Amino acid sequence: MTANISTDSTHRVEDLYPSRIKQQPEFLERQDPIVYGDAQNGPLNAEQLDQFDRDGFLLLPGFYTSQQVALCHQELDRLRDSQETRERPEAIVEPDSAALRSLFAVHRPEISDRFSQVAADKRILEMVMQILGSEVYIHQSRVNLKPGFAGKEFFWHSDFETWHVEDGLPRMRTVSCSLLLDHNYEFNAPLMLLPGSHRKYVTCVGQAPEKHYESSLKQQKYGVPDPDSLTQLVNEHGITQATGPAGSLLLFDCNTMHGSNGNITPFPRSNLFFVYNSIWNQLANPFCDHQPRPEFIASREFSNTMKPREFI
Amino acid sequence: MTANISTDSTHRVEDLYPSRIKQQPEFLERQDPIVYGDAQNGPLNAEQLDQFDRDGFLLLPGFYTSQQVALCHQELDRLRDSQETRERPEAIVEPDSAALRSLFAVHRPEISDRFSQVAADKRILEMVMQILGSEVYIHQSRVNLKPGFAGKEFFWHSDFETWHVEDGLPRMRTVSCSLLLDHNYEFNAPLMLLPGSHRKYVTCVGQAPEKHYESSLKQQKYGVPDPDSLTQLVNEHGITQATGPAGSLLLFDCNTMHGSNGNITPFPRSNLFFVYNSIWNQLANPFCDHQPRPEFIASREFSNTMKPREFI
Repeated sequence: MTANISTDSTHRVEDLYPSRIKQQPEFLERQDPIVYGDAQNGPLNAEQLDQFDRDGFLLLPGFYTSQQVALCHQELDRLRDSQETRERPEAIVEPDSAALRSLFAVHRPEISDRFSQVAADKRILEMVMQILGSEVYIHQSRVNLKPGFAGKEFFWHSDFETWHVEDGLPRMRTVSCSLLLDHNYEFNAPLMLLPGSHRKYVTCVGQAPEKHYESSLKQQKYGVPDPDSLTQLVNEHGITQATGPAGSLLLFDCNTMHGSNGNITPFPRSNLFFVYNSIWNQLANPFCDHQPRPEFIASREFSNTMKPREFI
Repeated sequence: MTANISTDSTHRVEDLYPSRIKQQPEFLERQDPIVYGDAQNGPLNAEQLDQFDRDGFLLLPGFYTSQQVALCHQELDRLRDSQETRERPEAIVEPDSAALRSLFAVHRPEISDRFSQVAADKRILEMVMQILGSEVYIHQSRVNLKPGFAGKEFFWHSDFETWHVEDGLPRMRTVSCSLLLDHNYEFNAPLMLLPGSHRKYVTCVGQAPEKHYESSLKQQKYGVPDPDSLTQLVNEHGITQATGPAGSLLLFDCNTMHGSNGNITPFPRSNLFFVYNSIWNQLANPFCDHQPRPEFIASREFSNTMKPREFI
């Protein structure tokens, strides 16, 4: 095996998590901590930090009030109805109807003033900084509009695998945060996670084509683990569904295996998704021979350190 | 509105449940009983019959022993591996892999001796005859092989709507029986039912093309209720997931609205499916201008009355 070496103008970074190189998948050991801070460093108590460490995620039911959720829905409606928004490069639209499906970079005030406030919400940010033990910036953000009846499945994946190979994220020091804007029941295809899966790195087989991101949000085909590895992980760890009322917040490690089924119920499951990366884990060049993906998919504005603010 | 009249050589049958005629969907009242027998007529007690009457279904967890389930899986494997079986007209295969997806008419001994025994299992048959208050024959049977990872969703529908319009099933005096051959969890897309939905008949809009059945088992497009009617039903009745261990038996009324999400988990959810129709509810001509569907989809061998037998 020849591991990739990422080079850019300033530094060379060894590929500690090579993927999409070999013909057979492997389980590699995680080489990075999961929780960097401790209970003295922020709002999460020792039990919550232990849970995050053990499972690779932490669900906080009803984290936002219904009033705060309503403000987010107002903003969601505004963005959905805006033709200007749908025509932005940051917008992913449904292939059939051109309806807005996802909008990236919603932490930027020029795209959404309100969502930029959520991204900087002190209550969220202080938990994330506690877990990562440093200041953070936004690696990626988006709002996902998942209407009822037509929600497609999203196959199992580790975000880290993609962000590492395609974006050059060197280490596992990144936390995702999903704010549920609708009630997630057992039957409207809530996010499923494999608790404990974040401790192993499952390498993927095959290479993604260039500009894979343009279709990958519609249907995952590359950078997904093979069925045997997944079966092994599920047998070992089981499946947890992240169910809860609107306003619930899910924090999860970048390497936690997750996915979701399709959804034929009338119940939507929109969510706000922020990825916080440690300032000590800046992107190198991709660990593959592709060009870096666009800024709104994988930000290189490392100096945009998040400053905690009060959310209304 | 012009209701269809079904005519054949022997009798004219009025269309009490017209569908796919108007431009707007309607909720029609059910005009048939749900439970025809009572607690003296069979193995189900009054509480179970009340439950079937109220919800339109009854789940019997662990109805078959693991040994009986194992016998069914042996037979499933035999059928899956048989090229002769895959080439039968009764076989529905996966579009990509040509793997067996469903096999119809498995109650026929020449297709499956073992499954014909299950179809005639005294313990099942006596419950069905109790509910329908008469002798019965098999209207349709099949085994569904639903592997993990790739299970597609099956949109909401009332079986009766399809069987009425496309097959000429005149009245609601028909019970479906699904024997779960795998554990159905909350997260591997178990059947979802809307309890109480069997008391209304939701008419559908639009006409199915000829030979619709050849594609409808792969993806439902016609004979499905509209989103507004479904939302109303779900708000009124809620959603129940039919979860339980392998060997669980689900009895449900022909008009109970049901469907299932896609399944990305490794867990399969194969099942045996038998539809028992009262001998007093024989098929007329279809209540549309199509030719009758094939015998293995909608049997007209009304004289094949089921005789209860002991299943090993």
